[in-house]
Amino acid sequence: MPTLVLDEPGKKIDLSDVDTDPPNNITKEEAQERLRALSDELFELQDLLWGARTHSMLIVLQGRDAAGKDGAIKHVAGAFNPRGINVVSFGVPTPEEREHDFLWRVHRHAPRKGEIAIFNRSHYEDVIVVRVHDLVPKSLWKERFDHINDFEELLTEHNTIIVKFFLHISKAEQEKRLLEREKDPKTAWKLNANDWKEREKWGDFSDAYEEVLERCSTKNGPWHIVPADSKWYRNLVVAEAVRDALKPHRKTWQEKLERDGRAREAELAQFRAQKA
Amino acid sequence: MPTLVLDEPGKKIDLSDVDTDPPNNITKEEAQERLRALSDELFELQDLLWGARTHSMLIVLQGRDAAGKDGAIKHVAGAFNPRGINVVSFGVPTPEEREHDFLWRVHRHAPRKGEIAIFNRSHYEDVIVVRVHDLVPKSLWKERFDHINDFEELLTEHNTIIVKFFLHISKAEQEKRLLEREKDPKTAWKLNANDWKEREKWGDFSDAYEEVLERCSTKNGPWHIVPADSKWYRNLVVAEAVRDALKPHRKTWQEKLERDGRAREAELAQFRAQKA
Repeated sequence: MPTLVLDEPGKKIDLSDVDTDPPNNITKEEAQERLRALSDELFELQDLLWGARTHSMLIVLQGRDAAGKDGAIKHVAGAFNPRGINVVSFGVPTPEEREHDFLWRVHRHAPRKGEIAIFNRSHYEDVIVVRVHDLVPKSLWKERFDHINDFEELLTEHNTIIVKFFLHISKAEQEKRLLEREKDPKTAWKLNANDWKEREKWGDFSDAYEEVLERCSTKNGPWHIVPADSKWYRNLVVAEAVRDALKPHRKTWQEKLERDGRAREAELAQFRAQKA
Repeated sequence: MPTLVLDEPGKKIDLSDVDTDPPNNITKEEAQERLRALSDELFELQDLLWGARTHSMLIVLQGRDAAGKDGAIKHVAGAFNPRGINVVSFGVPTPEEREHDFLWRVHRHAPRKGEIAIFNRSHYEDVIVVRVHDLVPKSLWKERFDHINDFEELLTEHNTIIVKFFLHISKAEQEKRLLEREKDPKTAWKLNANDWKEREKWGDFSDAYEEVLERCSTKNGPWHIVPADSKWYRNLVVAEAVRDALKPHRKTWQEKLERDGRAREAELAQFRAQKA
């Protein structure tokens, strides 16, 4: 899979150099076939995560308007047992949220052991949209990269597996999708004049995302730049990355579950012996 | 006031060298006189904090069993308008809390703008009691000092004024208080055999507190070591430190309130002119 995965800070990224199209060596049919096979695997891995209760998972989705965050979430969340999945959308902060620091509202929704939290937008908005629209002074948002890294490190030390996706679309694809939304009464509600205004700031958003990718890519919270012009390819990349993040723990979780099972059996045997 | 205030990291402290008794140059009567005068000042400062809505305050109280955390809180909270005061006691983590990182339960109770949060025990327990009783591996709690400093920095950048108190009592005074509690039916519920067991680990707790004071004393979150063998002196030190932390903002808050007042008047005048 030729997706760009960034797992250490300090690497400069020029998003205009990164493909938004799927690579040539895969067809839509092949991708869909692989996705179907993946669904069972994801379901099983989540079941182990849930049962073992030693880890949690945080999936972060970021991207420009119409990049496909909702679609990707629908797809990946759909593979899991809804018990243990918590999808959280972070919009414009409420008055209460604004009266706290920028991580306050995010920390509350950090996944507990066994759980998978999927963030539709996240704490990264506080160094992206906030920066582009000049909502807080530069001196303040500049400090936030370190706070984000510290925060994600804290979660990692508490056994949270973090995977972050930047859904990367081209300017042309975005235009196409915004126009489609306008025409379709079922999706027109998603659109407002603001989306077109945001589009004018394409370059500013690129700058903001590039700094995020440079400063907040870490071993414990890697960023995946997902070519997102094709939905079928985007879904496959996201699902495979989530699977790859969970899979290394499979054996440990299985062993934990077996140990727990044996302990319960022993307890039961003891209980019966006492009654007899 | 000869209280030890630590406002930078790296300074080694030997608690056995620090007085637990009041200094000689103040009598109980003088202290109580000053406390009475302070009450009005604290009330007024809180009113400005509340009205201006630009800052919040976090007061952290730590100390050994029977050091007087409840008493100090009762006293300082009593000076304020209860509206805008939030006293939070952090006990043994609940099962839900244990399923999250150690800052999760604390962050939820961070004060919002205008508010004063008073923590009876705090995130510091996760490097104190947790360390003394070996509840998590050393490799894990060692990381927490930095997380605590990062967290407090985050709050500070969001205009939270932080003051931390270590209520410092002597071993003899603790024994006296524990015995008194046992005899008094009104306070006996506070006591259990565990308090006496904890007492055996006096030196381990000293080590833990000393490392906290060394590593987590910062300009933005200073630790005050309060001589706490006398309640009247302890209350005075705490109240004065809280006053001193609020006072530098008095003018800014007053000006903000005056500006807000003028803006409201202008709005009202405009509204009336339109109606006329």
